[in-house]
Amino acid sequence: MIAEIISTGTEICQGRYADTNARFLSAELTKYGVKVAWHSTTLDEGGLIRDTLARATQRADIAIMTGGLGPTEDDLTRPILAELSGYELIEDRRVIEMIEERFRRRGRPTNPSNRNQGLVPRNATVLYNDWGTAPGVMIETLREGRAPFVLFALPGPPREMIPMFNERVRPLLEGRLGLRPCARILDIHTIFRAESELNERLRDLYGADPRVTVAWLANIGQVDIRLSCLVPDATQRDEAIETMRGKVVERIGAEDIYGYDDDTLESVLGRLLKERGMTIALAESCTGGLATKRLTDISGSSAYVLESFVTYTNDAKVKRLGVDPALIESHGAVSEPVAIAMAEGVRRVSGATLGAGVTGIAGPTGGTPDKPVGTVCAALATPDGVEANMRTYTGDRGLIRNQSANRVFDMARRWLLKKPKAME
Amino acid sequence: MIAEIISTGTEICQGRYADTNARFLSAELTKYGVKVAWHSTTLDEGGLIRDTLARATQRADIAIMTGGLGPTEDDLTRPILAELSGYELIEDRRVIEMIEERFRRRGRPTNPSNRNQGLVPRNATVLYNDWGTAPGVMIETLREGRAPFVLFALPGPPREMIPMFNERVRPLLEGRLGLRPCARILDIHTIFRAESELNERLRDLYGADPRVTVAWLANIGQVDIRLSCLVPDATQRDEAIETMRGKVVERIGAEDIYGYDDDTLESVLGRLLKERGMTIALAESCTGGLATKRLTDISGSSAYVLESFVTYTNDAKVKRLGVDPALIESHGAVSEPVAIAMAEGVRRVSGATLGAGVTGIAGPTGGTPDKPVGTVCAALATPDGVEANMRTYTGDRGLIRNQSANRVFDMARRWLLKKPKAME
Repeated sequence: MIAEIISTGTEICQGRYADTNARFLSAELTKYGVKVAWHSTTLDEGGLIRDTLARATQRADIAIMTGGLGPTEDDLTRPILAELSGYELIEDRRVIEMIEERFRRRGRPTNPSNRNQGLVPRNATVLYNDWGTAPGVMIETLREGRAPFVLFALPGPPREMIPMFNERVRPLLEGRLGLRPCARILDIHTIFRAESELNERLRDLYGADPRVTVAWLANIGQVDIRLSCLVPDATQRDEAIETMRGKVVERIGAEDIYGYDDDTLESVLGRLLKERGMTIALAESCTGGLATKRLTDISGSSAYVLESFVTYTNDAKVKRLGVDPALIESHGAVSEPVAIAMAEGVRRVSGATLGAGVTGIAGPTGGTPDKPVGTVCAALATPDGVEANMRTYTGDRGLIRNQSANRVFDMARRWLLKKPKAME
Repeated sequence: MIAEIISTGTEICQGRYADTNARFLSAELTKYGVKVAWHSTTLDEGGLIRDTLARATQRADIAIMTGGLGPTEDDLTRPILAELSGYELIEDRRVIEMIEERFRRRGRPTNPSNRNQGLVPRNATVLYNDWGTAPGVMIETLREGRAPFVLFALPGPPREMIPMFNERVRPLLEGRLGLRPCARILDIHTIFRAESELNERLRDLYGADPRVTVAWLANIGQVDIRLSCLVPDATQRDEAIETMRGKVVERIGAEDIYGYDDDTLESVLGRLLKERGMTIALAESCTGGLATKRLTDISGSSAYVLESFVTYTNDAKVKRLGVDPALIESHGAVSEPVAIAMAEGVRRVSGATLGAGVTGIAGPTGGTPDKPVGTVCAALATPDGVEANMRTYTGDRGLIRNQSANRVFDMARRWLLKKPKAME
């Protein structure tokens, strides 16, 4: 089955947004084993939408269109959908009632353009919208000597489109079209390993199992390895992925793999702390709160994040963390001794199991020949002692700050891995 | 002039990334007065790229294609480009030298697939790539009775594509194609004003000047108004935008507009502090470092951000900021009295001009009937006294945390606006 994702809208064509709907829908269809061959975006004017839909009817088996269903563009899109279906537009009472009810709750009267949204092609399956006003539709177009072409039209705003897909389209894909999720995708996350070295170690796995595609996503400092397997049988699929995962772990080493799929470094660190009944406190200089922000992005992080100090000035480093001013004087604020004193200081002051300290030059200004922009020292104080790691990271201010946070998270992760869980 | 943006790649078709290249290129072409009517993405296989390019040759005047030029997909794309140009592929010595030099610097030998990247259609203008290996090309296709079709092919990775566009494509657009930037776009940023109310106030401006489009982008809590004017004459353009800006400011009120274009709430706040020689320190609970992270995203923020405390526990609120435990006991940690005590505490402890305190329930858990998820109290302590603002924000954890930071930034911004600049 071959699919086309269609979107309409001036805002995408003028570059105001990236088309995240196309991304979402492609990923979801791919998991059903549907091959998405095209994304097509057009301005919602003149015959452009009609041309795009007509082409999709010829070259694709299924298309999902987003946008073009709002009260303003509606007059344009609905007749095109009717034409495509081969049936006239009729009023769907339930849609109109839902819209009227929605407006009533907000104390506003409906207007004729809202009522127009209740017009759907006679043969359409209406996809009722509990998240906004514009309903979606599923339309089938009969084709000579081929299976019918199936079009889903959904509203454009992602906060409506995503629940509409999950609650309305998915049951039709699985029921009416008989699609079954047949992909297993496993993302393996590594940290601070060179891309070229990983590539070397995994090279002979690329074709090792023809059912499993080994792909690659390198971000600065972080490399993800994606295993995908498209096989209808779930057991075979899981076995194939599991076998390949075993090989990848063997080649890379378990410790350098920090997680899988939706795991982030901060979620893994949080889980490790929680399992061990341990806590963390941070002393941030160049990261300016970013490391703590990332740790507390996770709901429930109050169980293990005690507190943090953003000691942006030297004075704050001395007063809050007890860093010896002589250390700053002789080594500079960006140095191993100061990072260590920050980590030890925050651990002592907070009473947390782990104290993390980060000091560096995030740039773009502030670099010196000795300590160029990107020079960052991270330190971790633990019940076993203290360790520090000094590096020069590349990239812009945001990348340098994120890599600095990654480093101290990873140091903590590796230390925690060696400690038993509290439950054990 | 009508343009099509083309991208190729399995990763986009499988939904691994959103197509941010298309967004960037569309925004840039729009500024030249070029109408981007289509984005087309296809898998880089079989005849799909050829079909897409052939269609663009017919319906567009100009196309920019990204991707499909790497060492692996290259064998497929280069012959298609040659075919489109009507000329055979020849070796470009400079490209090959650049690639060899690049590999030499990294101590790696080149291989035949790298040398293939030196093949370009004979009539192509080579776009040398100083940011990666694959060169781009500009190709003109002659058309019966119409101006030639112009195709730019660029590498896919944004860190190569963006400088290639700016340094290589832009001069050709302005030189060879004679395009002139002819759009003026002004984004007006408002904060904490209801979309419906703004809409009401601005309604009659929509068609007031046919040269100026008034568009709308509503995010939660923040509404941007975009004025765009496409007029060849720069003076007329600026006048039209300036007049409309004046009307918008008049309707909305200057104080509720926090900035324009690339301004962010944190950049504006930073500028105001700097101009007044004032400083800030923060006490964050539910925002967990996010507010300080955002302030320190800006290079040079060390001039006005003194320090912050992430006081995630009640104990930290008491110890670091001197919050009276009795206040927490009687009002709860999420309350006006505690937010005020945090703001006053951090101001006193740090010696900053402004002390900001934020405490709330970011969710998704932790809500109570009295204080549901999203209840946040922000407080600002200044030399004039202290003020607090308690609200219930909607959205997920990230949105609630960002709105909380927005609130305290906005309180500080409004206070600072009333104070004279240090220079004055």
